Amino acid sequence: MNSIAESSMVMAPTYANDLILRAARREPVERTPVWFMRQAGRYLPEYREIRSRVDFLTLCKTPDLAAEVTVQPVDIVGVDAAIIFSDILVVPEAMGMQLTIEEGSGPQFAAPVRTAADIDHLRFPDVEKSLRFVLDAIAVTKRTLAGRVPLIGFSGSPWTLAVYMTEGGSPRTFRACKELLYSRPREAHQLLEALSRTVAEYLAAQVEAGADMVQIFDTWGGSLTPEAFAEFSLRYLEEVISRLRESSQEARRVPVIVFSKGSNHALEGISRTGCDVVGVDWTIDLSDVRRRIGDKTAVQGNLDPAILYASPEAIGKEVERILESFGAGEGHIFNVGHGIMPDTPVSHAKQAVEAVREMSVLYHPQAKTLAGSPQNR
Amino acid sequence: MNSIAESSMVMAPTYANDLILRAARREPVERTPVWFMRQAGRYLPEYREIRSRVDFLTLCKTPDLAAEVTVQPVDIVGVDAAIIFSDILVVPEAMGMQLTIEEGSGPQFAAPVRTAADIDHLRFPDVEKSLRFVLDAIAVTKRTLAGRVPLIGFSGSPWTLAVYMTEGGSPRTFRACKELLYSRPREAHQLLEALSRTVAEYLAAQVEAGADMVQIFDTWGGSLTPEAFAEFSLRYLEEVISRLRESSQEARRVPVIVFSKGSNHALEGISRTGCDVVGVDWTIDLSDVRRRIGDKTAVQGNLDPAILYASPEAIGKEVERILESFGAGEGHIFNVGHGIMPDTPVSHAKQAVEAVREMSVLYHPQAKTLAGSPQNR
Repeated sequence: MNSIAESSMVMAPTYANDLILRAARREPVERTPVWFMRQAGRYLPEYREIRSRVDFLTLCKTPDLAAEVTVQPVDIVGVDAAIIFSDILVVPEAMGMQLTIEEGSGPQFAAPVRTAADIDHLRFPDVEKSLRFVLDAIAVTKRTLAGRVPLIGFSGSPWTLAVYMTEGGSPRTFRACKELLYSRPREAHQLLEALSRTVAEYLAAQVEAGADMVQIFDTWGGSLTPEAFAEFSLRYLEEVISRLRESSQEARRVPVIVFSKGSNHALEGISRTGCDVVGVDWTIDLSDVRRRIGDKTAVQGNLDPAILYASPEAIGKEVERILESFGAGEGHIFNVGHGIMPDTPVSHAKQAVEAVREMSVLYHPQAKTLAGSPQNR
Repeated sequence: MNSIAESSMVMAPTYANDLILRAARREPVERTPVWFMRQAGRYLPEYREIRSRVDFLTLCKTPDLAAEVTVQPVDIVGVDAAIIFSDILVVPEAMGMQLTIEEGSGPQFAAPVRTAADIDHLRFPDVEKSLRFVLDAIAVTKRTLAGRVPLIGFSGSPWTLAVYMTEGGSPRTFRACKELLYSRPREAHQLLEALSRTVAEYLAAQVEAGADMVQIFDTWGGSLTPEAFAEFSLRYLEEVISRLRESSQEARRVPVIVFSKGSNHALEGISRTGCDVVGVDWTIDLSDVRRRIGDKTAVQGNLDPAILYASPEAIGKEVERILESFGAGEGHIFNVGHGIMPDTPVSHAKQAVEAVREMSVLYHPQAKTLAGSPQNR
């Protein structure tokens, strides 16, 4: 126990801005930290410039370039955390599936997982080897960031990865994944079990490479009934987190965010998966989230990304409404409720960050009396 | 008051099967009625045969053909209600917008509504004239059905129609509609006000033409924050229903279903719009719906349409789970939680109907002692 306390004392001063780590642990902060899902992306001209030279997957697999686009929104938009630039589908690829991501048409797997034999043929990847490019990108990013803000690692949830793997790409009617789930639940569990083990190892490797916190994206959790969600998604979110926690001393204390889009019916269960932060979309009031999940877990959210199309006045008003809906107290990480859109005006994203920085001070009166470092303001 | 009671006594025997009307009014039924959103559609070979000869909009605008496909699922699948075959976008078309629906690419408006001038240029249609084809299709269908089952009329909600009209088709990023809503709320309200008036008149005309109940589809309600939903969708659902109720004696007592996809955060409010039935998607347990909206409103739902891809055993299990989640008592209309998919096996749709017919008897013990007509069983 002593060694954890010591190393955490050593770690704290290495960040100029550690607001997000403190918010995730529900510790006092001077203001609410803010980042945006998909913040490294097409809405930034600097990102598009790099993408004009390399395709999406090459960018993911070139650590120096991935690190460069990862840091861009920290410099340009002023967010309080970086998130490693990558794609959740590199995991199925590492498990042996052939992935292509073409401009416009989205991700595709040449041979979707459909039969028991397909599931058997998936391999448990040596993540240190087959996902080396992500770990290297994390290491490069950490050096580039030099402690300015924390770096978030991430993975898709087992259920969400299973959706892409069975559908062969972005789901339209969810036919393949729901057939598997309802008609052959035993096989579904076998696939999800394999994915849980792989995802946990992948996240542990990211933490070892330097990720300061991790987010699990359950993008398709909302496609399930409450009962199916509990059996086929929630259970494996729990398993990933518990395996991750067991993997190392470091992984035991890294904050974990779970974001299951459209699964607001299950917030109580999600908050009990062992995660530190529950991410929510914009179809729920944060006061309801707090009331339902209680004081043990922080909350991330929940600006409708489409509001970033609107006028500066409208954006400011919505930021204020969201801060107010969470209310005074600790444990709020400001974010969009889904990825930022590719045609978002950069100035609007900046303006939202500025609004959070300025207005949120009011909601952290306790921290004002603390000796917060000026960089955190 | 007497005249209503009398005419309802006159009306009742005109249906061989009036289960859905009784369920909507929370009156005792011998079993739970069932129908499927999009039940007249591409999954039926008989529908595809007609569509091989005429395009989608021609089908909508040819009363005899529209009536034919409307009745098909009653004959083939055995549902307890027909819903008039049409499209929600015939309303904006009647308001002066040029609509095309092309195979594969979905609906498109040549000139989306973007400016205050665009809103001003919309006309209040004479629904009896410009939507005559729908009213004629209803009249033909009523004759064809000859009282076998009730006929449902429908419209899009003001918000959902506004989404299509501003986006110019199916929404991707919701940029145009959210810009309008957040940056120019006064114009948004002007548009929604015009739509409410038009939708109410349209529904009233459908009732006059013979529709026995109506459903308002708020397909994009779930794209809004709870606050924006209350201001830009819920308020106009209320207004439509209240205008409809005022339009005629007949319209005062026709059951109204409101289905707002993805708006489960607002069920309490939806149940207080003046509707008789609240439709829900599959991301909520019906026991929660009953607990939240109380005893005044019936509930429609909520099979995940993707479950119809699964095995007969799995379908039966899910039907049972949903009946059980609503529990014993009156006021349940069984339905899918979103439109039935075009590649649904017809035999699976039939099997779900059969399962509801057989299993639901258990949940209506009270009605067993009533002198229910044998056709209703």
